[in-house]
Order: sequence, then structure tokens, then C-alpha cells
Amino acid sequence: MKFNQVKKIILASGSPRRKEYLERYQLTYEIIKPDIDETPIRGENPEVYARRMAKEKVASINGDLGKNEIALSADTIVVFKEKILGKPRSKEDAYQMLILLNGQTHSVITAYALLVKEQNSLTVNAVCTKVTFNDLPKKLLRAYIDSEEPLDKAGSYSIQGDGTFLVNTINGSYNNVVGLPIEQVIQDFLKLNVITC
Amino acid sequence: MKFNQVKKIILASGSPRRKEYLERYQLTYEIIKPDIDETPIRGENPEVYARRMAKEKVASINGDLGKNEIALSADTIVVFKEKILGKPRSKEDAYQMLILLNGQTHSVITAYALLVKEQNSLTVNAVCTKVTFNDLPKKLLRAYIDSEEPLDKAGSYSIQGDGTFLVNTINGSYNNVVGLPIEQVIQDFLKLNVITC
Repeated sequence: MKFNQVKKIILASGSPRRKEYLERYQLTYEIIKPDIDETPIRGENPEVYARRMAKEKVASINGDLGKNEIALSADTIVVFKEKILGKPRSKEDAYQMLILLNGQTHSVITAYALLVKEQNSLTVNAVCTKVTFNDLPKKLLRAYIDSEEPLDKAGSYSIQGDGTFLVNTINGSYNNVVGLPIEQVIQDFLKLNVITC
Repeated sequence: MKFNQVKKIILASGSPRRKEYLERYQLTYEIIKPDIDETPIRGENPEVYARRMAKEKVASINGDLGKNEIALSADTIVVFKEKILGKPRSKEDAYQMLILLNGQTHSVITAYALLVKEQNSLTVNAVCTKVTFNDLPKKLLRAYIDSEEPLDKAGSYSIQGDGTFLVNTINGSYNNVVGLPIEQVIQDFLKLNVITC
């Protein structure tokens, strides 16, 4: 599917999944990786944190934005009982995370920001998807960790990878869990005249 | 991720997506395409129909099953207001289906069957996922149809293709909408000693 692209997209993210979403719709983009401090503020609410990250990421590349360009950034976090689960530090750490999530429901929040310098317009949106894991035997979780897929993933799993067998149901946007609610971003692109159809 | 595979899988389906799910977990399989009459019985409930299809598909290849083999079949249907939406017959038909689903919630049901001849065991299961579409301008639906992706898809869209932008939220299994709730099938495979870990 191809849109008429009016503005060039500057993707403020190194994530291969986000690139793939833009490529799927044949959108032209350039990557500028943001360089920001990603430390949460003590006591900061997870969604507030994700929104702040998305905002700071586009802000950090503001100076690189040219005429007729739009910057897109995103931040995806895995949240269980109000706590952000990052990437595991070891296989044992990954196992502890998966045991925590096993048979339970957690949230995946992606905040994204869109910045058009010339219009002085900033859009920040956050989408939340509830993910419910199957209740699986420990042996199966260990086998998944042995595949090494969880080791560089926030929350120690990948829904679009082998880890899909962990997930019983989701309630919300699937693309959001992968890393970008593209179904929302496309609607924003149309509103902001980045694309037309 | 790799399991120890104890039984060979006979996939009674020509669907490339179902093949990919087995390949993702490095499972050895052989395809035997079932040849059955897929006409619904007058007044048949959609889920009952999908279960009957899955059952008839494995039954039709029963004679080809060897020792230490398990047959897997599946049938995926798109249901809106108790009516099964098949593949569109034309671009105009696809447009009518998408207008019907636009901004609304429909169901995707996949029924699957597992047959082990030597154990005389048949498992039939049906999984239902609710899919809610964005409420999109008609122009955008037309642009999607022009990509031709909808033309060979039940319900006139593909959630794992470009059509993903149509979907606002899902409630249930994502893989089920793609065509096989692999997260359930793997658990059945473990129970039926098709794989161990």
C-alpha cells in the first residue's frame, strides 16, 4: 500500500521494528538516533515516563529538522504492578521476570511523539495494551530463555518472535506491543499532512 | 526456540502462515492438502461450521497417517453479526465488506483439529478473537483495496499485512487472527507428546 508522501520522516529511533513499519507503507525516512538520558525520575509514573522519553527524543533532534520534515520518536515499556521491567541483566534475571509475568496480565505502553518544526506542532500520544500470559510450566520458560531471544528484550520476551507462545490474549493494539501503534501513527500522518491518499 | 520432536506433524493445510508457525519452532512437518466440501450447512452456526471443517480436514487425511504421526488442520473464519464473511468476489465486494466492518467489532474464529491415529485421539478446539476496526475515511479504504491485498483475504483484510492499519484493538489471540493460535497448539503438542522440552 502506497501513500502520497508530502513530508519526509525523520525517525528518532534505532529500532528495526519501527523502521519496518514505515517500510511496509513505502514511506521515505531517515534515521537520526536520539541521545538522551533515559533514567526514570524517582517515583515517576510509567506512562508519564514513556511520554517524557518520546518528547525528549524528538526534542533532541529538533536542530536537525529541515523544512517539510517531521520527526517521529517512540518509547515502549513493559509494566507490571506499576513497575517498569527493563531488559534482563542475565538468564537468571530473565527467568525471574518470566516467572513474575507467567499466568498474569501486564501492560505494554508505547508513547510516541511527532514534531513538525515549521508548524511548531508537537503531538504526544500513549497507547496501552494489556497482555495476558499463559500459565506455563517452568521448564518451558527455561527452554525459551535457552533460545537467548529474551536476553535483549524489555520484559524478557518478544511477542513477534518465538515468545509469542507465552501470550494467551492481548487487549488493545498488537503493533503497540511490537513497538509502534502504526494504526494511530498513520491517522496522525494524514491529519498532519505528512501523507495523503 | 527448539523442542525435541517425538512425532512427525502432518499439516492438513496449504496456508503459508500455518507453515511459518511450525517453521518458527523448527518443527518437522509434511503437507497433505485436504480435499473436502467446504459449503456451510443452511443455518449452521459459524463456530460449529469452523469446528466441523477442521474435523473433516483431518479426517480426510486419516488414511495417509502413519505410526508416530499427528495430523493438524485448521479453519479460520471472519464473522460479523453471525454471518461468515468469505473472500471478496471483486473490488466492489471488498469495499462493501470493509464499509461493513469499519468502526465496528467482528470476530475471527480459528478451529483446529489434532488427530493421532494410533492413540485413536481427536482434539478439536476453537479460539475466538474480537477485532475492532478504526473508523476510517472511505478514501483510505479505497486506497487499501487498490493495493489488491484484500482481494484474496477472508473478510477483505490481512491483519499481518498492510491491513494492520485498519485494526484499532483486538481482544484475544493475535496468532488466531493470522490463522493458527500457535500458543494453544504448542500446549496441545506437549500434552499429546508430539514435542517435549
